[in-house]
Amino acid sequence: MRSENRNEQNQAWIRKLVPEMVAPSLNDNTADVDRLIKGIRKVLPGQEILLDFSLVKEIPSILRECDYSVETILFEDNGQWHVAGILPAAQASPFCGLAVDLGTSSIVVRLLNLSTKESIDETSFHNPQIKIGPDILTRIHYAGREGGLKELQSLVRNRLNQELRALCQRHDIEPRRIGGVAVAGNTTMTHLFLGLDPYWLCREPYIPAINSPPLIKAHELGLEIQPGAPVLVFPNVGSYFGGDLIAGILASGMNRQGEISILVDVGTNAEVVIGNNEWLMACAGAAGPALEGGVANMGMMAGPGVIDKVTIDPDTREFHLGTIADQDPVGICGSGLIDLAAQLFLTGMIDIRGKFISRTCGDRLRETDGIRELMVVEPEKSGTGEPLTLAQTDIAGLIRSKAAMFTILTTIANTVNVPFSAIRQFFIAGTFGSYIDPRSAVTIGMIPDLPLETYVPLGNTSLEGATMGLLSDEARKDILRIRDRITYLELNVNQEFMNLFSAAKFIPHTDKSIFPSVKPY
Amino acid sequence: MRSENRNEQNQAWIRKLVPEMVAPSLNDNTADVDRLIKGIRKVLPGQEILLDFSLVKEIPSILRECDYSVETILFEDNGQWHVAGILPAAQASPFCGLAVDLGTSSIVVRLLNLSTKESIDETSFHNPQIKIGPDILTRIHYAGREGGLKELQSLVRNRLNQELRALCQRHDIEPRRIGGVAVAGNTTMTHLFLGLDPYWLCREPYIPAINSPPLIKAHELGLEIQPGAPVLVFPNVGSYFGGDLIAGILASGMNRQGEISILVDVGTNAEVVIGNNEWLMACAGAAGPALEGGVANMGMMAGPGVIDKVTIDPDTREFHLGTIADQDPVGICGSGLIDLAAQLFLTGMIDIRGKFISRTCGDRLRETDGIRELMVVEPEKSGTGEPLTLAQTDIAGLIRSKAAMFTILTTIANTVNVPFSAIRQFFIAGTFGSYIDPRSAVTIGMIPDLPLETYVPLGNTSLEGATMGLLSDEARKDILRIRDRITYLELNVNQEFMNLFSAAKFIPHTDKSIFPSVKPY
Repeated sequence: MRSENRNEQNQAWIRKLVPEMVAPSLNDNTADVDRLIKGIRKVLPGQEILLDFSLVKEIPSILRECDYSVETILFEDNGQWHVAGILPAAQASPFCGLAVDLGTSSIVVRLLNLSTKESIDETSFHNPQIKIGPDILTRIHYAGREGGLKELQSLVRNRLNQELRALCQRHDIEPRRIGGVAVAGNTTMTHLFLGLDPYWLCREPYIPAINSPPLIKAHELGLEIQPGAPVLVFPNVGSYFGGDLIAGILASGMNRQGEISILVDVGTNAEVVIGNNEWLMACAGAAGPALEGGVANMGMMAGPGVIDKVTIDPDTREFHLGTIADQDPVGICGSGLIDLAAQLFLTGMIDIRGKFISRTCGDRLRETDGIRELMVVEPEKSGTGEPLTLAQTDIAGLIRSKAAMFTILTTIANTVNVPFSAIRQFFIAGTFGSYIDPRSAVTIGMIPDLPLETYVPLGNTSLEGATMGLLSDEARKDILRIRDRITYLELNVNQEFMNLFSAAKFIPHTDKSIFPSVKPY
Repeated sequence: MRSENRNEQNQAWIRKLVPEMVAPSLNDNTADVDRLIKGIRKVLPGQEILLDFSLVKEIPSILRECDYSVETILFEDNGQWHVAGILPAAQASPFCGLAVDLGTSSIVVRLLNLSTKESIDETSFHNPQIKIGPDILTRIHYAGREGGLKELQSLVRNRLNQELRALCQRHDIEPRRIGGVAVAGNTTMTHLFLGLDPYWLCREPYIPAINSPPLIKAHELGLEIQPGAPVLVFPNVGSYFGGDLIAGILASGMNRQGEISILVDVGTNAEVVIGNNEWLMACAGAAGPALEGGVANMGMMAGPGVIDKVTIDPDTREFHLGTIADQDPVGICGSGLIDLAAQLFLTGMIDIRGKFISRTCGDRLRETDGIRELMVVEPEKSGTGEPLTLAQTDIAGLIRSKAAMFTILTTIANTVNVPFSAIRQFFIAGTFGSYIDPRSAVTIGMIPDLPLETYVPLGNTSLEGATMGLLSDEARKDILRIRDRITYLELNVNQEFMNLFSAAKFIPHTDKSIFPSVKPY
């Protein structure tokens, strides 16, 4: 999927170019800057070549130091080519770019060779703004304090600079040879990255400072690469539909297909897009933390020892647990929880309301202080020395989350009057999404009962979309086309929605006929 | 001439525009910046509207403070419109611009109302770099010192800011409402203004850092007006043919006329342009300081009490002196000196070599220590209490200067094979030029013997050209057309030139037939 998309649309909008130029003489006294531009025009005939004044000062000395043998970094903007920087010619180190997934929790930076379009390296780290607050709202409020916005911005900027320095050192690349950056993040992360006040994002009528940022020069954002390098910041549709999702649509390719697809980004918010090469409808709704593993007791984010796969023997009701890095289990993540619930339902250990069935749960079921819990891992097999248990309330939380997801999917499909059966591809975005077993997600009624090959996990689509936008002019143009094509559906939590939600709060659903493939053993 | 040219080409490239915009609501959640751009597009349909990232941060707060009722300053660059700034709507103070003549000796700043295209005020002052050195070479060398370039740049910048503050105060104009600047100066002054190292301007092969600067934002040059306002800096053809002369050609209009004209800028350098709407040939040569009044003893720059007009009664040989501001004479300026020499020749007091004739000079002629001097003003009539005298060597200096001028004119006319008789208009640029009596200049053989109506004094063409470039898009485009059309003639001081020069070192010339109108009384 990835490399296909990258090659299919491979016209570069950031380029390295060697101008055709000779040193000046009495017979050819064109000025240094004008000589450079003429030299570039010889290689790009008929193109408008623009050069920012901030570059003018250094050009005479660079040209003379290199005896008029230089490389330029150019980028295209609104049909005109801009000189981003000048470097001594014929360097061994490659000409690079950075793709950044700017997440609320994690940031991922990918270093790319812009000439070969290949990834060189990748690094991921927690968003350092977490120390201010783990969630978006806390950070928005903090930005309103004296100096708060600057602090939030510099936390991310400084960490990015530190990480890119490390990447450059590891691969012996001069930071000045990084000639472009593409950044995809949600609307709030993007505002903080740009140093824009997010105050109005969470206040009616929820207006961003900007939807479609212009190309910004790296030095304007304090990024320590080629100072004039363009930074492509993904646009947003509004406060609740950000550049990360536009990057996701781009990465999925659904915007170029005649057939209708669905893209789902599963997290605390469930973000859903449906559409094709003619139209796109999007909405987002709270799904609760359960799908990310944020549930009471044993729930946790993916990491070593975290249970991500569960099967239960239908005859013996023995649990077979898969953990990340094959370590002793310490908790369970969202995909593990979905597996667990699906298996409990299929083996008759929970009923369609998610209630434990005493008869089938047997010894595993305990009741302490009126709370019913299922022993998933005995203390002696647990990595923590403590038992790992699933409470009745944990299942209730998961059911609310999956019901919210299914209701949002149903609502958006109804709105555009497209039956699920017409969906040819159902993309699941997000790192977490790649771990979900679609079979289990269908079993609990979180996603529609479609042929399993319909479900396509895409991994980090925000990073992949940023990579595509960085490498290809066509992809970059698609970003704005996608943005302009999206109709945002404001979820109206009315009686109809609540009816759909209530029906979805069963496993898999009150209407079994829409989940024909789900059959308990 | 001035207002004609200004109105004829009156499409503005810097504009004030009120965007059509309403405040956001839940049904219209377009972001602030995008809303502003849409609002501008409604007024300028079909135009690309670009906005610099540096403006993005302040837009949300300005829009909210003004309840979405704002004015924008826009400018056109390479076919696209850029937002230069945003201001609260409906201000009483006008929307302004500045035209600057950036001279080596004097700087003139004109404040203009960009809506009505009328001058509001004008101020002129000595270039504060004079304290570093009166001439260009001293300043170029000083720029090479540690911190020298920065000092030279900030001398002019600080003084400009001080002067424009005073202009704004005087007319109750907010500096943020100054939305554009045009600056014409010679190549060295321009480099210093831009903070560009002038080192290579005076070293073979004499290469400027830049010929045609891009539009620069005011804040990049430290000008304290609207920070994003465009600064149009006139281009140069090389180290010795600067933006002031291109402004001069623009102001003369010779580049738009079918008939051939000559433009002369008289100063320490004599700069000459010949051509029409198809071609332009230019050259420059040293003329010496005599024409600017920089001669021994009584010579000085124009100012109160300076003799600028001289007539001598052919019968009584009585001197009739006109002085600036009608004060008692204190010295003589270039135009007065040309008058004086012409009158001395016509009344037979000097011969064709410029030598004093004892018989006709009579008592006025004295010889002290072997130096022959003519008493022009007796001590009792002088404003200084001292006699004002003209030495034989002063006349020799004037003759060298006028011979240089005439030789340069002859050489450039010969090069393009155009007889002087084909010249329909002979423009004399420069403040000093406006004081010259063409009749006297012809008499001493400084300029060709053409019908007097051929001679058109234009005053400060550098300032006038800057004004036109600021006000009119067509004029702005003409600037680059002129630059590209100029062929620069490198003056070759060979035997032929020296022969012409020798012949021109007589009054009016060895060949009297080319000055038929010059007849001594």
